[in-house]
Amino acid sequence: MKRLLIATGGGDCPGLNAVIRAVVHRASQEKDWEVLGSIQAFNGVLWEPTEIVPLDNKAVSGIHFQGGTIIETTNKGGPFAWPVKNGDGTWTTVDRSDDMIRKLQYLNIDAVINIGGDGSQRISNKLYEKGLNIIGVPKTIDNDLSSTDSTFGFQTAVQVATEAVDKLVTTAASHNRVFFLEVMGRDAGWIALNAAVAGGAEVCLIPEIPYDINKVKEALEQRFHRDRGFAVVVVAEGAFPKGGMPVFEQPKEPGYENRMLGGIARKLMTDLKEKGFKPEMRETVLGHLQRGGVPVAYDRVLSAQFGVKAFEMVLNQEYGKMVAYRHPEFVAVPLSEAVAKPNLVSMNNALVKTALGLGICLGT
Amino acid sequence: MKRLLIATGGGDCPGLNAVIRAVVHRASQEKDWEVLGSIQAFNGVLWEPTEIVPLDNKAVSGIHFQGGTIIETTNKGGPFAWPVKNGDGTWTTVDRSDDMIRKLQYLNIDAVINIGGDGSQRISNKLYEKGLNIIGVPKTIDNDLSSTDSTFGFQTAVQVATEAVDKLVTTAASHNRVFFLEVMGRDAGWIALNAAVAGGAEVCLIPEIPYDINKVKEALEQRFHRDRGFAVVVVAEGAFPKGGMPVFEQPKEPGYENRMLGGIARKLMTDLKEKGFKPEMRETVLGHLQRGGVPVAYDRVLSAQFGVKAFEMVLNQEYGKMVAYRHPEFVAVPLSEAVAKPNLVSMNNALVKTALGLGICLGT
Amino acid sequence: MKRLLIATGGGDCPGLNAVIRAVVHRASQEKDWEVLGSIQAFNGVLWEPTEIVPLDNKAVSGIHFQGGTIIETTNKGGPFAWPVKNGDGTWTTVDRSDDMIRKLQYLNIDAVINIGGDGSQRISNKLYEKGLNIIGVPKTIDNDLSSTDSTFGFQTAVQVATEAVDKLVTTAASHNRVFFLEVMGRDAGWIALNAAVAGGAEVCLIPEIPYDINKVKEALEQRFHRDRGFAVVVVAEGAFPKGGMPVFEQPKEPGYENRMLGGIARKLMTDLKEKGFKPEMRETVLGHLQRGGVPVAYDRVLSAQFGVKAFEMVLNQEYGKMVAYRHPEFVAVPLSEAVAKPNLVSMNNALVKTALGLGICLGT
Amino acid sequence: MKRLLIATGGGDCPGLNAVIRAVVHRASQEKDWEVLGSIQAFNGVLWEPTEIVPLDNKAVSGIHFQGGTIIETTNKGGPFAWPVKNGDGTWTTVDRSDDMIRKLQYLNIDAVINIGGDGSQRISNKLYEKGLNIIGVPKTIDNDLSSTDSTFGFQTAVQVATEAVDKLVTTAASHNRVFFLEVMGRDAGWIALNAAVAGGAEVCLIPEIPYDINKVKEALEQRFHRDRGFAVVVVAEGAFPKGGMPVFEQPKEPGYENRMLGGIARKLMTDLKEKGFKPEMRETVLGHLQRGGVPVAYDRVLSAQFGVKAFEMVLNQEYGKMVAYRHPEFVAVPLSEAVAKPNLVSMNNALVKTALGLGICLGT
Repeated sequence: MKRLLIATGGGDCPGLNAVIRAVVHRASQEKDWEVLGSIQAFNGVLWEPTEIVPLDNKAVSGIHFQGGTIIETTNKGGPFAWPVKNGDGTWTTVDRSDDMIRKLQYLNIDAVINIGGDGSQRISNKLYEKGLNIIGVPKTIDNDLSSTDSTFGFQTAVQVATEAVDKLVTTAASHNRVFFLEVMGRDAGWIALNAAVAGGAEVCLIPEIPYDINKVKEALEQRFHRDRGFAVVVVAEGAFPKGGMPVFEQPKEPGYENRMLGGIARKLMTDLKEKGFKPEMRETVLGHLQRGGVPVAYDRVLSAQFGVKAFEMVLNQEYGKMVAYRHPEFVAVPLSEAVAKPNLVSMNNALVKTALGLGICLGT
Repeated sequence: MKRLLIATGGGDCPGLNAVIRAVVHRASQEKDWEVLGSIQAFNGVLWEPTEIVPLDNKAVSGIHFQGGTIIETTNKGGPFAWPVKNGDGTWTTVDRSDDMIRKLQYLNIDAVINIGGDGSQRISNKLYEKGLNIIGVPKTIDNDLSSTDSTFGFQTAVQVATEAVDKLVTTAASHNRVFFLEVMGRDAGWIALNAAVAGGAEVCLIPEIPYDINKVKEALEQRFHRDRGFAVVVVAEGAFPKGGMPVFEQPKEPGYENRMLGGIARKLMTDLKEKGFKPEMRETVLGHLQRGGVPVAYDRVLSAQFGVKAFEMVLNQEYGKMVAYRHPEFVAVPLSEAVAKPNLVSMNNALVKTALGLGICLGT
Repeated sequence: MKRLLIATGGGDCPGLNAVIRAVVHRASQEKDWEVLGSIQAFNGVLWEPTEIVPLDNKAVSGIHFQGGTIIETTNKGGPFAWPVKNGDGTWTTVDRSDDMIRKLQYLNIDAVINIGGDGSQRISNKLYEKGLNIIGVPKTIDNDLSSTDSTFGFQTAVQVATEAVDKLVTTAASHNRVFFLEVMGRDAGWIALNAAVAGGAEVCLIPEIPYDINKVKEALEQRFHRDRGFAVVVVAEGAFPKGGMPVFEQPKEPGYENRMLGGIARKLMTDLKEKGFKPEMRETVLGHLQRGGVPVAYDRVLSAQFGVKAFEMVLNQEYGKMVAYRHPEFVAVPLSEAVAKPNLVSMNNALVKTALGLGICLGT
Repeated sequence: MKRLLIATGGGDCPGLNAVIRAVVHRASQEKDWEVLGSIQAFNGVLWEPTEIVPLDNKAVSGIHFQGGTIIETTNKGGPFAWPVKNGDGTWTTVDRSDDMIRKLQYLNIDAVINIGGDGSQRISNKLYEKGLNIIGVPKTIDNDLSSTDSTFGFQTAVQVATEAVDKLVTTAASHNRVFFLEVMGRDAGWIALNAAVAGGAEVCLIPEIPYDINKVKEALEQRFHRDRGFAVVVVAEGAFPKGGMPVFEQPKEPGYENRMLGGIARKLMTDLKEKGFKPEMRETVLGHLQRGGVPVAYDRVLSAQFGVKAFEMVLNQEYGKMVAYRHPEFVAVPLSEAVAKPNLVSMNNALVKTALGLGICLGT
C-alpha cells in the first residue's frame, strides 16, 4: 500500500472539506493507495504523539457540504517555525523540517497534498526542495492568486456578502440611512467589488484604490435629497484613504486583537460625520460569517475539481507543483511560481469598468 | 368613500410590508374604502406639505416578501414630540397632536392603523383618548409583548441568528476556537435563547439572567481538552454580569454611537482573557442583518393575519384596541393594557428548562 | 445503569434528528441513563441479529441541523404486523409484540421513546397496554393533530413551499402564465393554506374544501386581461372537486406507484383547458423537497422542546403518554386521546378568514 | 436624445433583470441616451398599439435581485413569424420584419439590445442583415454556448439543483431509498453534471452520454447491502438509453403538454424495476423551480458585466455582434458565429473526468 497524507493550513475556507473528500474518493479507486489526514496542518505530524487520522470514503461521507475542515487547521507552528520555550520563559522558534521529513518516512508516507494559502505553499515549496513528494492546492478566500482563474471559497464569501447587502438595502430604504458593510479583503478587493456589483451598492472601497473621502461624501449626498434617500457602502477591511494606511496596520486600541471586527467602516462614519455629512449611518462587520457554512455549488464543484486533479498529480508524480484552474482545464504549475504574483484589482479590470458603468463610486 | 391611513413607526422589522399589503388587500374587498400611507410614521401627516401616498393593490404588489416598510419609518418626531428650533439654536419639542387630528379630519381620514412598538402604541393610545379612530398593530422583533403569543419579525431574526450559529460552528471546530455571537435583545433574551437552542450553542447569556463570568469560564473549559475543542456562545446585546449593567447603558467611548455594534461580546472576551481563559476567541456582532431581508414564511403568515384582523377591527369600529394573537385566534385587546406588561424570559419558562436540559450554560 | 431506547417510524420529517439529539443531551445529564437507538423503527429490535446503536453526545453531534433521522425509519414491519412468507410464496403478517417486549427485557430496556405519526402512536399505545414503559413524540409534517398546538417539520415544509411560490411568481409574471404548485397534504390543507398566504397566491385548493372548477376558472380569469396577467395556484395533493375524490385514491395508471408525483395539479390543468381557459399553464410538484434538508429554526426549537420534555416524562414515569405543545407549556397527554381527533382546516379557522380577506380564492 | 430599445425573448432565466438594470444604469451616465423596453420580446413593437415602456434608473430600482424579466418574454410571434388567421380559421405566419424596422425608425430607435437564446439571436442576426443597429446578449440557462465561457442563470440553476440533492440525500438515507432528481437539460448535461458533483450523487445521466441501464443498475446495487444503503441519481431531462431517444421527443400521452414534468426519471424507475432492481425508488422533477427566484451573486455579477458591455458596444457601434465572456475579458463576437457551435459535454471534459474520479457512474 502507498500512503498519501493530506493537511489543511491557514484560515478556514468553504470548500476545504470538499477538496478532502474528492482526494479520498479519487484515491479509493486506486487499489494501492490509502489516505491519512494530519490534524492542524503539519502539527499532527510534529506533535508527540502524532495526530494522524485515516481518511476513507466513510470518514468523508457528506462532508462536501460542510464548511471548515474535518482535519482542523491552524496558523501556528509548522515545520519551519516550531515554538519552543527558552529557559527564561520566553518563546523562540526552531526549524523542525528535517525532523518532519524523517517522521513522514517512518510513517511510510509516499506523498503529501498540502491545502493552504501562500504561507502554506511557501512551506510546501521548501519541503519539496528538501526532497518531499508534495503537491499544493491553493486556498485563498480572497481569490487573489494570479496563477489560477479562481479559488474555492471565494464565491461563497461573495454570496454571503451579497445577501448581506440585500438585507441592509431594505432597512436602509425604510430608515433613510447609509449602511456600511465591511467585508474581508486586506489586500485584495474582489469580495467587496463583486458584492457591490451583485448587490447594487452605491459606493465600494477597496485596498487597491485608495479613496478620497470627499468623493465618497459627494457620491452619498447625491443619493439624498432633503435628508431622504438611502445608500449602501461596501468596504473591504483593507481599504484606506489616499495617503493613509489600512486600519489593521495601525496600532491597536488596547484589548483589540480581533481584526475581523474591522474598523474601516467605523472610521468612514467618523470621518464623514466630521466633514458634515448629515444622514444617519450604521455599520455591519460581516467577519467570520463569510468563512463559514455550506459552500455554494460553484465552490463545491471547483473543490472537487481541485481534489481529483491533485490526486492525479500524485499518480503522475508531478511533485513540487500546485493545481490551478485555467478555464476550461485544470493544470499543474510550479509551486515556486504559483504564489509569486498576487491577483489584485486594477483600474482596467473588466469588473472595475462594470462597477463604474453601473454608477458605483469607487472613492475616486 | 371612507379613508384609512396606515403608518409604521420605530425600528423596521421583517413583516411590516406584509401587514401593509394585507390591510390593503382586505380593504380592497370593501367597495367604499380607500387606503393611504403616511410617510415616516405620522411625520408624513405633520410635514408641510404632507407626504401621504395612496396604497392600492398595485402599490403593494409583491411587497410581502420584502423587508422594511415601503412607507418608511422613523423614531424621530411624532405628534407629541415634534422638534422645533429655539431662537438660540437649541432644540425643543412641542405637542402637535391636536394639529395632527385636525389635519386628519381635513384629509377626511376615517380611521388609522398604527403599526409599531410600544412607543408607537403609547402614541396610539394618547391619540385614541383624544378621539381618534385608531387601531394598533404590535411590532417588536424581540417578541417581548405579553399580550400576544407572538409578533412578526421575531422568527426571521431567530432564523438569521441560527444560521449565523451554523456558520460559526464549522469555523470554531476547524480552528479550536470560541465564537461569541452577539444578537439583538436589550431587555429580552428570546432571540438569543431560541438561536442558542436551535443552533446548539454551548453558552447563552441574556439580560433576564445576569451571568457569573466564572460559570461561563468553567462551562467553556469543560469543552476544551489540552487546548482542543470548540464552542459557540450566543449573547444578547443587553446581557450583563451579576451586579453589573448592560454595556449599552454605560458611557460610550467617543464617536461610538451605533449600539448595534455591541460591546458585550467584546467585554466577555476581555474578561475571560483576564481570568486566564486560554483558547482563541472571536466575536461576531449580527446587528442589522437580523432586521432586514425576506421574512420567513411564519412571519409572513402572522403579518397577513394581523393585517386582515386590523382592518376587520376598523370595520367593527373596535377603536382604541390592538390586534393580538392568542392561539388559535386573533383578538382585539385594549391599547392601554396591551403594552402594559412585557414578556421577559423567566427561569421557569419551558424554553429555559429545555436549554438547561440540553446542557446549555446560562451563566448561572 | 438504566437504558432508554429511541425509535423513529413513518415518513421522515425535518426535526427528527433534533428530537433525538435533545433526548440524548438531556439523558447525558443524568448519571444513570444511557440511550440506544433502534434502526428502522422497531425493526432493529425485531431483526435477528438486532440492530441497535448506542446514542451518546458524540453520536448526535451536529445532527440537529440535518434532515432525516440517523436511526433510519420505515413504514414496513413493526411488532404487530411482521411480514412472513407462507409456504406457497405469498406473504402474511404476524403479531410479534410479545416477542418484542421479551427482547426489550432481555436487552434491559427500561423505557422507550417512540417518535412517529398516528400509525406509530397507535403501536405505542398497544405496547403500553401490554405493559411497556413507552412515551410518544408526535410527528406529522401536516400539523394535523388537535392535541398539540404544532408539530415539528411543518414550518420547514411551509417555508420550502413558500420559497417555491416566490420562485414561480417571477416566472409566471414574465411569461403571463398560471403556475400550479402541488404541495403535501392528503387530508389536511395546512401546508397549502400557509404557503398560499405567505406567498401571495391567487388560488388555494385543499382537501377540506372541495372546489368548484368554475369558481377557480372565474378567479383566474379575473387576473388576466387580454391574455396578460399571471397567477399562482397552490394545491394540496389531496384536494378534489365537489362530488369527486382525491386523485391518489383513484385507480393508478400502470407503473404509477409514487403518489408524491401528484396528479391533482395536472387534473386541474386538463379540466380548466376543457372548460376553455386560455392562458398558458404549468405545474410543479414539490414532492420530497418538502421533507428534506435543514429544518428551520422554529422546528429545531420545537424539536428540542419535545425531546427534553419526553425524557423528563421518562424520569417522571409518565408512560402511556405523548408530549404535546399547549402554548406556552409542554404537557403530557394520554396516547389514547392524543391521536383521536385530527386537526383539519375548517371554514371558520382564522387562517381561512385571512386567506379570503386577502382575496385568495379557495375554490368556493 | 438617442433611443435604445431592449427586448427579452425565449424562456425566462435568473439574471435577465440584472442585465436590463445594468444597461439602463450605464446608459444613464450618458447625457444623450434614453432606454425603452419592448414588452414580450419584439411583440411590443409589432402590436397595435405598441407596448413600449420607458426604462430609467427608477424603473429598474431593485430588479437585479428579482428573477424573471420586468419587460416580459415570450416564445411566440416575433418579426419573422407573426401569426395571422386565415379565412378558414387556420393559422399561418407572415414576415413582418420590414414592418418592424419601419416602426422602429418611426419611434426614433437608434439601437437595439436583444437578450435571448439562439432563436432570439438568429432573429438578431437577420435583423442586422436588414440594416438594424442591433446587439445580442446571450441567454441560455443550460450554459451550452461555445462562444462564451459562461452565461447567466446557469449557476443559479446549478445551485437550486444542488440544494435539491442536499435535501433528497437526508430522506434517501433515512428511508434506504434511491431518489431520481430530474433537472433541466434537453441537449446539454451541464446542470446535471455540476449538481451531481456538487451534491455528491452516485449516478448522473446526461444527453451527451447515452446510458446503459445495466450499468446504472449495477452502480446502484453496489450502494445497497441487504436492502440497506441509499443513492441519489441526477438525470438531465434529455438523457436517454443507448439506442433510444429522449422522452420529450417521443409521442406524448394525451393531455401531456408540459415537458417540464419530465418523464426520464419515471422511465428509469420503471426500467430498473423491470430488471429486478429491489430498493424503493422515488422521483422529483425540479422543473420551473430552476428558472425562478433570486439569482445567485455569480449570475448577478455576470449579468451586470454583460449589460454594461452591451451598452458600450452600442456606444462603439459594434452592431451585429454579441457580448461574450472570455475570462477575464468581455468581448464582442459576430452574431453569425456566436450561435454556430453549441457547447456540449464531451468525455474528455475536465468535469467528466472529475465526476468519474469521484466515483460517479455516468451510465457507461
